[in-house]
Amino acid sequence: MSKPLIALTMGDAAGVGPEVIVGCWPSHEVHDLCRPLVVGHPEVIRRAVALWNLPLEVVEVSSPEAAHPTRTSIPVVNVCRDDVADVPAGVVDARAGQAAYDCLVAGANWALEKRVDAVTTAPLHKAALHAAGHRYPGHTELLAELCGVTDFAMMLYLGPQASLKGESGLGVIHTTLHMALRDVFVHLTTTAVFEKIRLAHEVMRHIKGAIPKIGVAALNPHGGEQGLFGDEETTIIAPAVAMAQEAGYEAQGPFPTDTLMVRARDGEFDAVVAMYHDQGHIALKLLGLHRAVNVTLGLPIVRTSVAHGTAFDLAWQRRAETSSMVEALRCAALLVERRANG
Amino acid sequence: MSKPLIALTMGDAAGVGPEVIVGCWPSHEVHDLCRPLVVGHPEVIRRAVALWNLPLEVVEVSSPEAAHPTRTSIPVVNVCRDDVADVPAGVVDARAGQAAYDCLVAGANWALEKRVDAVTTAPLHKAALHAAGHRYPGHTELLAELCGVTDFAMMLYLGPQASLKGESGLGVIHTTLHMALRDVFVHLTTTAVFEKIRLAHEVMRHIKGAIPKIGVAALNPHGGEQGLFGDEETTIIAPAVAMAQEAGYEAQGPFPTDTLMVRARDGEFDAVVAMYHDQGHIALKLLGLHRAVNVTLGLPIVRTSVAHGTAFDLAWQRRAETSSMVEALRCAALLVERRANG
Repeated sequence: MSKPLIALTMGDAAGVGPEVIVGCWPSHEVHDLCRPLVVGHPEVIRRAVALWNLPLEVVEVSSPEAAHPTRTSIPVVNVCRDDVADVPAGVVDARAGQAAYDCLVAGANWALEKRVDAVTTAPLHKAALHAAGHRYPGHTELLAELCGVTDFAMMLYLGPQASLKGESGLGVIHTTLHMALRDVFVHLTTTAVFEKIRLAHEVMRHIKGAIPKIGVAALNPHGGEQGLFGDEETTIIAPAVAMAQEAGYEAQGPFPTDTLMVRARDGEFDAVVAMYHDQGHIALKLLGLHRAVNVTLGLPIVRTSVAHGTAFDLAWQRRAETSSMVEALRCAALLVERRANG
Repeated sequence: MSKPLIALTMGDAAGVGPEVIVGCWPSHEVHDLCRPLVVGHPEVIRRAVALWNLPLEVVEVSSPEAAHPTRTSIPVVNVCRDDVADVPAGVVDARAGQAAYDCLVAGANWALEKRVDAVTTAPLHKAALHAAGHRYPGHTELLAELCGVTDFAMMLYLGPQASLKGESGLGVIHTTLHMALRDVFVHLTTTAVFEKIRLAHEVMRHIKGAIPKIGVAALNPHGGEQGLFGDEETTIIAPAVAMAQEAGYEAQGPFPTDTLMVRARDGEFDAVVAMYHDQGHIALKLLGLHRAVNVTLGLPIVRTSVAHGTAFDLAWQRRAETSSMVEALRCAALLVERRANG
């Protein structure tokens, strides 16, 4: 099988996206993993090349099929309005929000049409997206709509590394995501938890190449302490775990989340199903802030992303860390290969 | 100043408490730090000595003043009914709950009467405490009642170590603690957050020997994302941080909690004020499960504890980890010394 063609969307031009893409481009690793092409504006990418002062040529191409990436040549398909080239660094700008939106829509459509094998995204800024009139809480929800799916989830994934004992890395899947903590209670249902266990099983089965072990988090402290601190464990989560076990998934729980995360780090589980955003993010970011990857589960396409944001405070200063982008490309390439092999 | 006299309460006799106390007893470190005495039942402690097969003598004494601890001699003040000696390992038993309660009450009272300098507790089991008719969610709330205080907090503290960059370790103080997650919203007030910042400042000022830097956590993902995901950051938490700054505390926030924990680990803050149990516990247990210490803030006495529970699944099998107990004694001794020096 040839190396997968991956559409790398530029993200918000005021943030670290362009420089992260350009910063990792010369790496042998990137080109051993895949054939990357950038979806963005060539002027923005040229500015990032100048910022890093790298010997890279930016080549505007008309379609993904025309891309011929090398370690010294960056193919860019321009799907943006030209005004994005004027966006200043580090501020919310509707022009950058519109461009990030256009890049994502193009990349997702090419993946749906099988013109690219996967989409890997640089970060967008929600306020800029909103300023451009696109009211989504994040990439994940926009991608789900573009792909026409309602059962989806965001997974933070950390590949095998020193901070983890498991050989397949660790995935943390979020049952609820971009919402106020007080809204979690409305969205937490047995069906939602079961669906996330199923999605965790599917993706980690590909990554592990075997049945993954899944630990399901409790919602309340001490796992509810036998009903003293809340009852969602018995009324909502335990029935979902039972359904998952009946369906043949190796799921266990709910477990008190503080010790579950330690057990997962120590290799007892390949994936954790968390109940809300911070539960999963606190753990994964402590375990590997710069190497964590964001994977959208439940889509008909492969989509990965860096796990960090636009980092406006340090954008366009050559201070951005590029390792999360390399990991995101690695994860996308792996999923393309494993999905092709069933 | 002579070494502090520390009352070490036995905790639940069915759990790991007795063996953790006995297991760390021969350590030079323990006796360099303090003069420990056990509050418990001598038969239970003798069983733990036999379990470890250590050359230790258990000496029943009538009062804390009569204790003469050495590396080979364990003074025990018996405040328990004799039936606790019959409690089997690893199960909920009202007799063990009653004994744990009696030990804690005795230890706290001696500390209030200044007959001991501090209380360090081995874990109790809430269900056993309840079975004995004492309906407290945990040690912390019972101690607060014994001491007659209403402004108190539980801090998890990790001393200086390899996983942290800060030289004073890291304390995580919980604004709300032992309650269902859905009840957090009722208890989260500007006054409560301010009070926890104040308590964090007071204790970390002693530990650091200088003004501590305090990071205050957000409640919602992404710190509420400018109101998109909840408004407690602007309505409740930010006003508390402003009050704390006016009072001269070096507090900042609220910050998105996932990155705040990474910044705290990397030395930017000496303490984090978390909004609820799991927010703080997930981070601290990942950073140092076996060395974390539980400190009750706001009491007129010094009280520390191991951060782990009774671990019924591995109790009385010589598998218990004793390092958290050594750290709890170290922290108690440090706080006694620093509080004495203002």
